[in-house]
Formats: sequence, structure tokens, C-alpha cells
Amino acid sequence: MQELHDFLRAELEDLNRLITDSLKNTRVPLITEIAHHIMAAGGKRLRPLLTFLCAGMCDNKDHDRMIRLGACIEFIHTATLLHDDVIDQSNQRRGRPSAHTLWGNEASVLVGDFLFSRAFELMVEDDSSEVFKILSQTASKISEGELLQLTYAHSVSLNEDIYMDIIGAKTASLFAAACEIGALAAHSSHDQRNHLRALGYKIGLLFQISDDILDFCFSSIDLGKNAGDDLFEGKMTLPLILAYKTSNANEKSLIEDTLSDSKKFEKNFPLIKEIILQSRAIESTLTYAKAIQQDTLQHLLPFRESPQKKLLEKIVHFSLNRCDFF
Amino acid sequence: MQELHDFLRAELEDLNRLITDSLKNTRVPLITEIAHHIMAAGGKRLRPLLTFLCAGMCDNKDHDRMIRLGACIEFIHTATLLHDDVIDQSNQRRGRPSAHTLWGNEASVLVGDFLFSRAFELMVEDDSSEVFKILSQTASKISEGELLQLTYAHSVSLNEDIYMDIIGAKTASLFAAACEIGALAAHSSHDQRNHLRALGYKIGLLFQISDDILDFCFSSIDLGKNAGDDLFEGKMTLPLILAYKTSNANEKSLIEDTLSDSKKFEKNFPLIKEIILQSRAIESTLTYAKAIQQDTLQHLLPFRESPQKKLLEKIVHFSLNRCDFF
Repeated sequence: MQELHDFLRAELEDLNRLITDSLKNTRVPLITEIAHHIMAAGGKRLRPLLTFLCAGMCDNKDHDRMIRLGACIEFIHTATLLHDDVIDQSNQRRGRPSAHTLWGNEASVLVGDFLFSRAFELMVEDDSSEVFKILSQTASKISEGELLQLTYAHSVSLNEDIYMDIIGAKTASLFAAACEIGALAAHSSHDQRNHLRALGYKIGLLFQISDDILDFCFSSIDLGKNAGDDLFEGKMTLPLILAYKTSNANEKSLIEDTLSDSKKFEKNFPLIKEIILQSRAIESTLTYAKAIQQDTLQHLLPFRESPQKKLLEKIVHFSLNRCDFF
Repeated sequence: MQELHDFLRAELEDLNRLITDSLKNTRVPLITEIAHHIMAAGGKRLRPLLTFLCAGMCDNKDHDRMIRLGACIEFIHTATLLHDDVIDQSNQRRGRPSAHTLWGNEASVLVGDFLFSRAFELMVEDDSSEVFKILSQTASKISEGELLQLTYAHSVSLNEDIYMDIIGAKTASLFAAACEIGALAAHSSHDQRNHLRALGYKIGLLFQISDDILDFCFSSIDLGKNAGDDLFEGKMTLPLILAYKTSNANEKSLIEDTLSDSKKFEKNFPLIKEIILQSRAIESTLTYAKAIQQDTLQHLLPFRESPQKKLLEKIVHFSLNRCDFF
């Protein structure tokens, strides 16, 4: 990550300047305050960085356009984070108090709406109907994905296929858009654009699966957010889905009880972590992810060697690194 | 309202068909269910009706475009209603249980996000950068207005000027966009477009002021929502602002106490209604509104006589009618 930030230092500075300027232009100090809090909160800017790398890997990149579109992506991402805070009632995000515990649900919803609109205002400056199409469809998909997950909350009927659908929509679609928009900001070929969209989509899947693994493996302090949040909210993720399949009747019943009643979470979470470890579900999840990882790298093959390509390869590898000691 | 619906029956049918079709195209049944609930809940479709009237008052209206843009406006409006439900914790809307009490905050936020994105997807089909600009700026303004109101919650420092700023942004800006977009769907002149935007803005102000008057005059049953909601949430509106100015020290202190502590609402609401009646603040608010009403009609003068123009004049009159027995 440090290498990535060093390589793209100039682009990041331009991005941060544009983000700050876009948030200044409001009569409501609360917007600047909350947006600054959440956008400055150690945000890795991973999605715009992907935009920059993908644009840089193609010829003819348009610097200003790339920065502007990167800011759109980051605004949409931050808006979904703010709305997630309301949704999940989690009280930590990135190790700092989340926006909704500091300012209330109202402010989180509204500042999220504001950032979302501001993303579309930036797109107006860009004036490309292709970008509008990609980002409005992506925004729809994100909320569909979150709603699909909500529909299956508290239920063990959420299987691998539905899980992949959910994370594809709620997470991977924005990664896909970030990369595809990089291609657009560099006037790439149709073929390159398709590869980059697929690359982004799969990187998104890898990051989400990796997050879902970590949620069962680390403490809240290490994660910088509450461990087991998904389980607490009754949401099955891949490790639990795979563990449930191979568990015995008692274990199944324990998992069902915990999913359907968040009050049982505190007592049962350590037991469920144990079931997951015993069933080797983390290893199975990693095997599943590693197949995606190999597939992801294929989309980089058509591009000539460049520092950007090397960094994208590293990102693909890094995506599962944090889970690799299992 | 009935006359309006009769006159625009064909347009309304096309609008409702497009709205229904746009909401079918999702894998998540919960979206169709919630969106249907809120969009079918006696929605008056007032904003798209304004779009249709304004387009009809100009020459060369493009029917399909007008319907599509009307649907965008209604989606944005419904998205803000859903997010308002979360924000305000009110448990009634339009006399039926509000979405968040039926499905929870999460679903309200997410379906709101979905409708908002769907509005932008419809705009992509329209492919006009002018429309994009108007609606993305309007969406920003709405959230800014709501946030400005939130900033002044529980405080008597909210004066007439700030009140007009707030309702201009949170309510009138969408009415303005609805009318301006009608002009765009009819290839109107620049001058006509400016008049229609101003017309919509002022109609929006009138409707909001009227709503704020009714909140102090009717019971929850008559209103189809909780009376006194704004006061309960610590928000000053024009009748209370004007009453506060002329009230004595005891009354001022009662108003301040109620604004700052919602637990005192039940006991104090009847007393505050009495202060408002005694101070003749409703009459002062109406006087204020009637000046705007006269000003609003000016923007119709440049247009030739037509049934649409007549209906718009009636809407301007109707906007304060419900309050007129004071």
C-alpha cells in the first residue's frame, strides 16, 4: 500500500485537493465537518488508485479527467459507507467512532445523499454519457446488493451462489466501475475496457472475501472495527456458509440461533469461530478465493509491461495476503 | 386536484406505467414491495404533474421525454421521502405506516438509494447534460437544505431568513426543477424556462409554508401524519418563528424548553398551539405567503392562455386554500 501511495503521490495530491475543494462549496458547515471526518479517516483511496493505475496502463490518459472521475468514485464509496453506518448500527469504522454515533442517523443519511449528489455534479463537469451510465447503474447495483443481503438476513438459506451475487453487487461493482472508468479516462480500446472492468470486478470479490475471512479471525482492535459484525446482524458470509454445510446438527442449530437472535451473539461468537476453525472453512474459503485470484491475473495479460501493471499484480496478490497465515 | 388528474389522465397513466416498469427490473422483491408501498400510497404525483403542465404550456412538447423526466422527478421525491422517514423517526406518512416502521431503517435508506440511482439511470436514457446538471444540483440542494435544518434543530436562533433558505433548498428546489424540466421537454425559450423555474420554486415555497401552517392547526387524523412533527424534532417553522418574536418571557422559555427536549412535547404542544393562535402568527404567516403567491402568478403572465395555464393558476391559489379559513 505504501509503494502504491508513493508511486501515485502526485495523483493522490490532486485527488485530495479536488475532494477538499468540492466539499468546501457549501453553506452547511456540518457537511464539511462530517465529510472531512469520514474522508480523512485513514481512507486508503483504493478505488481511485485503481482508476489511476488502469488509466496509466493504457496510452493517452487524460490526467484531469482521471482525477475527476476518481473523485466521483470516492464520493460514491464514502456515501455508501455513511449509509452503511446507519444500516449496520455498528459503532466503529476504521478504528474511529463512526459518523452516525457522533452526529446521529439523520446526518449520516443526509451527508451520504449529499456526497452521492456531488459525485453526479462532478460527472456533469465531465459530461460523458458513458460515465453517467456506468456510475448510475453501479449505484443501483450497490443498493440492490445491500438489499439482497438484507432479504437473506437471519436465514441460513444464503448459499454460495447468493453470496457471490451479493458481494458482486454491493462491493465488486464499484471496483469494476473504478477500473472501467480508468480505461475511459485513457481512451482505451473496447477490449482493454472489458478486461479492466472484469479485473476490477474480481479484485472487488477478492477484497470482500478477504474482509469476510478476517471478520472471523481477528479481534476488534486488530480490525479497527467490530469483529463478527456480519454475524451479529444475522448475515452469513462465505466462511460461515461453508462451515454450516459440514457442521453437525448441534452446530447447525447453534449457528441458526445466533443468526436469528443478536442477543446470543456475545456468548456464541467464540463457539462459532471454533466451528469455523474446526471445519477448515477458512481454508476452503481461501481455496475458493485463490481460484478467483488466478482468474483475475488473466485480465492483465493483454497489457504491455509497465510499473502500473506490476502494481496491479501486487494488488491482486495483496488482496488475500492478510489471510495467508492460515 | 381531481380536475388536474382528470385533465392529465393519459399522461398520468403513462407515468405510472413507466414507474411500475422501472421498478420491476430488479432481482430483489423487497425493492418492488417497498417502492410500490410508498409510490402507491396516495401519491399525488404533484411534481410530475407540474412538469406536464409546464411542458404543455410551451409549444413543441416531446411526450415521451416529458413522461420520462416526470418519472425522474417522482423517483427523487420518493427517495427523499424514504430518507426523511429514517431521519424523522415519524411513524406515519400519508396516513399509512411509514416504510421504516414496516421494514426498518436499513431498507428505507437502501430503497431510497435505489430509487435515486434509478432516477439517474432514466436520465441516462434521456441523455441531456442540461437535465443531468439541473437534477444533480437539485439533489445536492435538497440534502443541504435538510442538513441546514438539522444544524438549527433545538435552537430558537432559526429566523425567517434561515427558514426561507431551508425550505427553498429542501422543498422548493425540486418544484423548480420539475417546472424547468417541463420547459426543457418542450424546447421552450430561455426566457420561458427561467419563468417556469421561478414559478416552480415559488409554488414549492407556498406548499411548504402551507404544510407548516397545517401542522399547528389540524389533528394527526386530519393531516394523515403526526401533527407537530417539526416541533417534536426541535425544528422551528414560520408560524413558531413569528409567534416566538412577539411572545413574553414565560412563553419564550416554554418554546425553548419544548424545542430542546422532545419529552416535553406531549404536555406542551397544546400550550404552544395556544401561543401561536393568540399571537396571530398564523395570520402573519399567511400574509407573508400571500405576498409570495402574488409574485408567483407574475411568472405565468408571459404565457398565452391555455387550459394548462389555468390549471397552474389554480394550483397557485390552491396552495394556500387549505389554510384559508383562518
